[in-house]
Amino acid sequence: MTTTSGSAGTPAETPAADLTVRRARAEDVPAIVAMLADDALGATRETPSDLAPYRAAFERIDADPHQHLVVAEIDGRAVGTLHLTIIPGLSRRGSTRSLIEAVRVHTDLRGSGLGTRLIEWAVAESRRQESVLVQLTSDATRVEAHRFYERLGFQASHLGFKMPLT
Amino acid sequence: MTTTSGSAGTPAETPAADLTVRRARAEDVPAIVAMLADDALGATRETPSDLAPYRAAFERIDADPHQHLVVAEIDGRAVGTLHLTIIPGLSRRGSTRSLIEAVRVHTDLRGSGLGTRLIEWAVAESRRQESVLVQLTSDATRVEAHRFYERLGFQASHLGFKMPLT
Repeated sequence: MTTTSGSAGTPAETPAADLTVRRARAEDVPAIVAMLADDALGATRETPSDLAPYRAAFERIDADPHQHLVVAEIDGRAVGTLHLTIIPGLSRRGSTRSLIEAVRVHTDLRGSGLGTRLIEWAVAESRRQESVLVQLTSDATRVEAHRFYERLGFQASHLGFKMPLT
Repeated sequence: MTTTSGSAGTPAETPAADLTVRRARAEDVPAIVAMLADDALGATRETPSDLAPYRAAFERIDADPHQHLVVAEIDGRAVGTLHLTIIPGLSRRGSTRSLIEAVRVHTDLRGSGLGTRLIEWAVAESRRQESVLVQLTSDATRVEAHRFYERLGFQASHLGFKMPLT
């Protein structure tokens, strides 16, 4: 109820109270992939017309107890997604940390507070798993996303390095 | 043999050929923690005088087939460490990615090419695990580390956001 914002394109009637964040199921794969692809960067990387590699990956994710792939559901429709990984480690006195990847909100719901709800879910789940640090990387070009994460309490204290293996 | 460099403090006789990168064992925990603590940032975060939380964390890491905590060993001595996590995912056509954390080289061996050998091991292991992307974050203050990763082919394409949970 308090998660709606005044951002452009926000449907004022967004029923945030009816939103559920739940574990993704195999039948959610098409909706998740559609959200991954409906994005400036994702459009060049995803192939929603060929779901086979995604279905195989879903099985790998679902079989690993440290992976938490979730969808945000409103009225039976998956309108957001996030992938949380719980990682044990030695550093910081044997701390467990959490990694957030693949956060997406359906175009119709952007600016509605749904992204905040997904991150709040990830933080709460991380605490349940005794994680002491939540981390994520965001492409340097996603300036709006950076502001979003800073508003939620994240600090851009690090550089994120990537190397594709081809 | 080709990994020695002219950096200050490099022992010219560093026997890089005798270096082995192998899975860490419980008895390596004190040496790994000493390396984590012998670092500008780690000094404030680690407690090498109390190993109990590290030993408990080691058991969690060792029990998870997606965690690869390794040491670099020369003449029976652990002189480097790295933690690689293999993460299945839906994005990028169901890609598996790798995350590198907690890279450390013993003070005596810094500038010897040992860090390069550790990263090369992580890249090779990532390929074996069919990972298509290797990623890591580096504190914004670690300017030398940034140059090191860029020389190895990483791109600082992202911002790394962190939030401690207290």
